[in-house]
This record gives sequence, structure tokens and C-alpha cells, in this order.
Amino acid sequence: MRIFIAGFGTVGQGLAEVLDSREIFFKKRYGDNVKIVGVMDSKTYVTDPEGLAPMDLVSRKAETKRVGSRTYTDALEVLDSVDYDILVEVSPTNYETGGQGLKNIVHALECGKDVITTNKGPLAIKFGDLIALARRNRCKLKFEGSVGGAMPIINLCHDNLVGEKIQSIRGILNGTCNYILSKMDSGQPFEQALKEAQQLGYAEADPTGDVGGYDSACKVVILANSVFGRNVTFSDVSITGITGITEEAIALAKSRNMVVRLIGEVTDTKLEVAPRLVPRGHPLAVTGTLNAAQILSDLAGPITITGRGAGRLETASAILSDLISVLDDREE
Amino acid sequence: MRIFIAGFGTVGQGLAEVLDSREIFFKKRYGDNVKIVGVMDSKTYVTDPEGLAPMDLVSRKAETKRVGSRTYTDALEVLDSVDYDILVEVSPTNYETGGQGLKNIVHALECGKDVITTNKGPLAIKFGDLIALARRNRCKLKFEGSVGGAMPIINLCHDNLVGEKIQSIRGILNGTCNYILSKMDSGQPFEQALKEAQQLGYAEADPTGDVGGYDSACKVVILANSVFGRNVTFSDVSITGITGITEEAIALAKSRNMVVRLIGEVTDTKLEVAPRLVPRGHPLAVTGTLNAAQILSDLAGPITITGRGAGRLETASAILSDLISVLDDREE
Repeated sequence: MRIFIAGFGTVGQGLAEVLDSREIFFKKRYGDNVKIVGVMDSKTYVTDPEGLAPMDLVSRKAETKRVGSRTYTDALEVLDSVDYDILVEVSPTNYETGGQGLKNIVHALECGKDVITTNKGPLAIKFGDLIALARRNRCKLKFEGSVGGAMPIINLCHDNLVGEKIQSIRGILNGTCNYILSKMDSGQPFEQALKEAQQLGYAEADPTGDVGGYDSACKVVILANSVFGRNVTFSDVSITGITGITEEAIALAKSRNMVVRLIGEVTDTKLEVAPRLVPRGHPLAVTGTLNAAQILSDLAGPITITGRGAGRLETASAILSDLISVLDDREE
Repeated sequence: MRIFIAGFGTVGQGLAEVLDSREIFFKKRYGDNVKIVGVMDSKTYVTDPEGLAPMDLVSRKAETKRVGSRTYTDALEVLDSVDYDILVEVSPTNYETGGQGLKNIVHALECGKDVITTNKGPLAIKFGDLIALARRNRCKLKFEGSVGGAMPIINLCHDNLVGEKIQSIRGILNGTCNYILSKMDSGQPFEQALKEAQQLGYAEADPTGDVGGYDSACKVVILANSVFGRNVTFSDVSITGITGITEEAIALAKSRNMVVRLIGEVTDTKLEVAPRLVPRGHPLAVTGTLNAAQILSDLAGPITITGRGAGRLETASAILSDLISVLDDREE
């Protein structure tokens, strides 16, 4: 149960912290078997078959901006340089080509390794191929952290609701948009709410990926493929962002005891991101940077799950849950 | 994988319908191995080692008010009269002694059977003993449906959040109270809202168990014992119901953009049911008969799950999820 971490930015470092904080838990559950044997960031790497101390990695990155002392040009050669069982792929995402993350995932699966990733680009672009590759090589491919951060929607659908016929998922899949819309609820105009979100670090300098609905669309694709067994990609999603929402529209909604939320919706036939009216008091009418998703199934009816959509430890917690699931399966 | 169903009221019948509707799912996943070999209601029973057709049981109960043609006086003798692997115990609950349900569960566990139940009384009264008995006999004891109906809170904590340190659970655990409080949000006085809830069948003629907070308290006990590993019972809960909530209190909350909700709270040291102020837009500020629970853990932060707290198919869906989990474990 040797882990290789590809990518050592916020999420990779968060994971190292989490693994450190769970040392006793892992020892109790799996003995001395769980260790990090390799880590790389965009330029450097470090490996040790005996195991690397997670907090040493975090300190070195903080002090030197590099996780390893050795530099590399070919990431796949680095992966091949040490024996590992599980790749945690958390390198920067690329929505257009899948980038290095896609190459890392493919390579690991081809070598028969289990893969856990939060990397949305590769999943949104090549989901079908990756799942098929994983099946062919009898590997696990887990990606809870790619949708909704700490909100455990994928494993909830796969584990707890496995006997249900899931008819639709409708969700708030982007915390930045929800923050902006929540501010607009209380009368702020869009531009001002966006500026505030940028100042607080919720929105990037170029906010298009969030407010244009593209980030939500990626997550809609991942849900459609993983929960509904569809075979769709980013370009199949009908996308409307929140830039066109006026103060008047918000005020009108309010007068009817409703709020406006950016909702991603998936069914067997639908694939859409668009602003929608949601009644106050509805489980999807949450405020702030939260993510929320309502799963409608034939027996249970609507089940809604809400949680933090992003954050260092929050995303790492989703990886932890995937990791435990993979390790439990390997133990059996 | 032979199932015995003890109790054939709303939930038992709902389960029979669900098992019928999932025939293909079960065949695909487990072959021809899953069958109902026995059912009893309060007076009659029927057994067949070859398997009973679920919808025949439902029809017979509807037509004759009895599920079986044979009557019995000793339920445990009925259980002993046929070989089974899993007892689904859904007989009427008794909060004071645990009633026949408790006896059935104990007997099945003593005989080495797995048990799935939605029966709150036995769990609230004898949780520690039952868990110990199950462990001793290497049996499963699953009870997802006992808290929050279709809302999968227990399995979420046990499965998806197994690596987290859960610090608190705060939840709306009684749909009847939430319906009444939601109506009071829009200006109705308590008595009128209660009357409406009774007319709609949400509240019983004697509503004390719901509005007094006792039903919520039972669920708080189950969560404390099962998620926090505590060893508490009903009498350990500090309980305040909703009967004392005035229209003035609701109006004051509203003026501060808050709603009043009956919240059950569990931590390592706390065990309480009481009305609380919840900000509008908070994941717990849901309206109607919904149940909701917010799990606060050290890594994921707050995760909230919302779903229907009661209902024939909804509660059966919780049993289905427990059943699949037990069957999957037996397959391995």
C-alpha cells in the first residue's frame, strides 16, 4: 500500500497533512503498511521505498518551493522510478487536453495501479476511456474530490444508493457562483459581489471559469458519466452562466420568496448548467460558498447533500475517503 | 441469503414492494440467492423455504388484514420454524420495554443471524447490549432506517466519513415538528399548524411523542451510541419540545432573518433536543416534513444531509441499503 502523490500544490500538501494526522488510524486499520513512497511537483521529485515523512514534505515545499531535490523532465519516468500501488493525481488541471494529469493517470492505470484523483480536466475529457482502461487492468479509479470537494456525492450514489434508480441530480456545484448569488440576494449588484469574491480569494482574477458556468459543467459531465453511466463530454453540456443576472431578477425572485441559484442538472437525457429559481427553505437554497446536490431516486425520493466545495483539508478529506475505500478493498 | 420479515405494517409491506421491484437487480448482483422465507405480523405468519412472492404477501395482507394463514402465540418459535440468514425486524416499536421487537432482535442475534431493523425502541433502550451481542456472535446489526428514514446519515458516517473525527451532529430528526414549525414561519399559530399536521396524517391524535421531542430524543440516542461510540439511553437526553413556542418568538426570529427549528444535538458530551434559531439559507433551515442532519468533522467541515424522514418506500429504501450492504459482505 505504497502511495505516489503527483502534484504538490494546495491539495497535495493538504493530503500530506491529512495522512500525517491519521497515522494512528492507518496503523490501527492496516498495520504499518501505508506509506508515501514518491511525490512530485511540476519540476522536482523525491522517492523513498521505505516511506517519506508527510510533514517533512510539506516543510520542504514551504521553505524551498520544491518538494524534491531532484529535477525531472519526464513525469512518467519518475513514476516508473519507484514501486507504488496507488497514484494520487492532484496536479494542476487542464480542461482542454487533460494535460500531464491525464498522461499520469493513463500511465498508472496501464501499469496496473489504482488511481485516486481530484483532477477534473482528464475526467471531463476522457472519462469513458479512463473507466474502460481501469476495468481492463482491474484497477480502481476513484475521484470523489473532483465534484463538490468535501461533499461526498459520488460515493453516496455508488455506495449508499446503489439499489436505487437515480433519476436526476440537480446541484450547486460551484461555491464562487453561490457566494456571488448569495450576496446579490441581499441587494448587491453582480459586479460588486464578484469583486468581493475576488478580494476574499473565492474568485480568480479571470473569473470566467466560475461565473461562466464552465467549472459547474465539468462536474455535470463527471456526474453524468459516473452516476448515470452516460458517455458525454464537456461540449455536450448546455451552459448559461450567472453574468447576465440582474438585480431586478433577484428582487423579483425575492418578492416571490425565491432565490436564484446556478444549478447543474443531469438526467438520462439532460445535461445543463443554468440559473434557476429555488424556493426559500428548499435544501438547495443554501447561502455562501457551499456546494449542494439533490439526488432524486425512485424509492428514497429527494436526498440532498451539502458541504464545502473547496479548501485544502476539505478536498484532502475526499481523497482520504477514496483512499480508505481502496485500501479496504485491497485488505480483503 | 434467506430473509425473515418480522412485522408487516407499512414498513414491512413497503419492503416487500421494494424487494419485488428490485428482483432483476438482486438476480444480477447475487444470482437466485435472495428470497423471503418467512413473514409474520402481530398475529399470523407464513413460511416457505423455497421463497415467498413479495406481492402475494402484500395482497393477502390487504385483503385479509393478515399476512399468513397460521396464527401463533410465541414469535420466537415462529422464527425458529424456518432457516433464515437475515432478520428484518420492523414490528411496532415500544419505547419503554423494547417490546417484542427487542426479543426478536436478541433471539436472532443469539442464533447467529444478521439483523436489519428500523425499530427505534429496542435501539434506544438496549443499544450497547445489542451491539455487544452482535459482535460476540459475529453478526451484523444494521439500523439505517431508524434515524431519518430515507436520509442515509448512519451509513454516511460509518462508510464515507470513516476516516474523519466527527465532532458533532445537529439535526432535524422529526418531520412532524418541522412541518409545524414551517407553518408557524408563515404566521400560523401552533395549535392550528398541529391540527393541519394531524389532518394530513403527519401527526398522530396524541402528538406528544413528536411535539414533546421524545421521538427526536430516541434518534439522538441512536446517533450518540452508533456514531460517537457512547453508551447512553433515552433518560440521558435533555429534552425540550416545541409546544411552548409562541407566534411572537417566531416573528422575532423572522425579523432577524432566522427560523426556529427543533434540533437534536450530539457531541462526545452533549445530548440534547431543543428549539434553536437557524439562519435562513443555512442547510438546516429546511421547510416541510424533511429531516436534515449536519455532521461536523475535523477535515470535511460541516456536511449536511437532507431527506424524507418517513414514508412506506422511503423507510424501505433505508432497509434496502442495509440489506445490500449485508448481502455484499456475505458474498465476499
